[in-house]
Amino acid sequence: MSFRDKLCSIQKKNNSLLCIGLDPELNRLPAFLQNNNNALFAFNKAIIDATSDLVCAYKPNMAFYEALGANGLKQLEDTISYLKEKHPDLPVILDGKRGDIGNTARLYAQMAFSYFNADALTVNPYLGLDSLEPFLKYQDKFIFVLVRTSNPGAKDFQDYLVGQEKLYQKIAVKLKSLSNDSQIGIVVGATYPEELKELRKLLPQTVFLIPGLGTQNGDIEKTIQYGIDRRAEGIVINVSRTIIYASDKDDFGQKAREEATKFRHLINKYRR
Amino acid sequence: MSFRDKLCSIQKKNNSLLCIGLDPELNRLPAFLQNNNNALFAFNKAIIDATSDLVCAYKPNMAFYEALGANGLKQLEDTISYLKEKHPDLPVILDGKRGDIGNTARLYAQMAFSYFNADALTVNPYLGLDSLEPFLKYQDKFIFVLVRTSNPGAKDFQDYLVGQEKLYQKIAVKLKSLSNDSQIGIVVGATYPEELKELRKLLPQTVFLIPGLGTQNGDIEKTIQYGIDRRAEGIVINVSRTIIYASDKDDFGQKAREEATKFRHLINKYRR
Repeated sequence: MSFRDKLCSIQKKNNSLLCIGLDPELNRLPAFLQNNNNALFAFNKAIIDATSDLVCAYKPNMAFYEALGANGLKQLEDTISYLKEKHPDLPVILDGKRGDIGNTARLYAQMAFSYFNADALTVNPYLGLDSLEPFLKYQDKFIFVLVRTSNPGAKDFQDYLVGQEKLYQKIAVKLKSLSNDSQIGIVVGATYPEELKELRKLLPQTVFLIPGLGTQNGDIEKTIQYGIDRRAEGIVINVSRTIIYASDKDDFGQKAREEATKFRHLINKYRR
Repeated sequence: MSFRDKLCSIQKKNNSLLCIGLDPELNRLPAFLQNNNNALFAFNKAIIDATSDLVCAYKPNMAFYEALGANGLKQLEDTISYLKEKHPDLPVILDGKRGDIGNTARLYAQMAFSYFNADALTVNPYLGLDSLEPFLKYQDKFIFVLVRTSNPGAKDFQDYLVGQEKLYQKIAVKLKSLSNDSQIGIVVGATYPEELKELRKLLPQTVFLIPGLGTQNGDIEKTIQYGIDRRAEGIVINVSRTIIYASDKDDFGQKAREEATKFRHLINKYRR
């Protein structure tokens, strides 16, 4: 099944466009977990158990695991294995923002799609189209290309004017020249609703992965209004810190569920 | 000691601007190593033992380790630990090409500089200046920012005209606005000597990390002629596959030494 079909199917079943970012930082976890050698996995498991019926995907960001070296990566592996076993219908979006020359990108594709068995990977377009191609050889997998990111510095280079268009718009359009653009989505921050609106015009049927709600203060109403692809919905809205750190006590799973319920409801309120 | 001082010192001692890329791919290693659970480390150790007096740095690319998950990352850790113990004067450049929003980049910095204790990390500028700042908080560490990469697709976006300059030139100049630009170098491919020449004009004193010789067929003479910063040299020339895969038999260490000797000599021939 294609990533897009898998995504549409779970979005209907769970009535949700919400994705939870599994970004566990050791010193922000509940104190009773911090001395556990598998703290990241134990934390993720509790978050997943508490929220799996409220979401359309989970998105672990690799930085939070790699900061702990091999042990961290083992816990990322355990997290994805747990998801694949318990919730095979929920796509896993690995957030690595990888990008390298073709010969090396091939190894990152192997890492994401073969070793970790993720459904999708976020990638960085700066190295050009040949750096994206190795990922597209995995035909049932998917990439989200960074186009307009959610951080304040996004404007530094992404907004440069290239002729009449901005760099991020040029990149978005160029992605359509790749042979299998049905395997390509884009990342665009909820913190920039006008840019989101423009991008939806340029790419009417593309899946958008939208971070930046919650801690980063993106605008939910505009994100939905501007981001929705009327034919197939085609958006995944990621929230990380506001949900996973809703409590630092042993009720963190329950509190995460309450926050996730709130976000799902708010998003659905603006959908129609 | 600053990265730059450390680099200059070993460049003098070993009379070398050559860096070897430690990019071990399991199925390209000598057959007798492939069933070893620590094959990547065993391979790296042999390459290091055979070449450490011929180089000014080693550059492991993370993709080749992550493709094997936690076990791969453990072998990256073992490789860097071995280097730090046996050759503390040789800088380790971790090639991760990382880039994420500030809060996440902080974790990548922790990974590279605190967990792995690398001396430098390659980073991707697409997310903007705030995505680089967390790395610069480690004052004795260094980043190499991707500016003009060595692959054919480099031209796709990096060459876009932004006003009168190309995107990669704008980015190169913008790096000078960061508070601690003595901790910032750039990556520029040997496959593009004219671009290298332009960048040296723009950044006369910056350290350049130059991949693309060897398998990628970059031009050694022009690389040296155009890349050298006359005051402090300031270039690191990386070769990976042509050296580490010089033989797939049990003489691979010796053959790597012969190739590294050739490259060091060729580079020095054009230095004067």
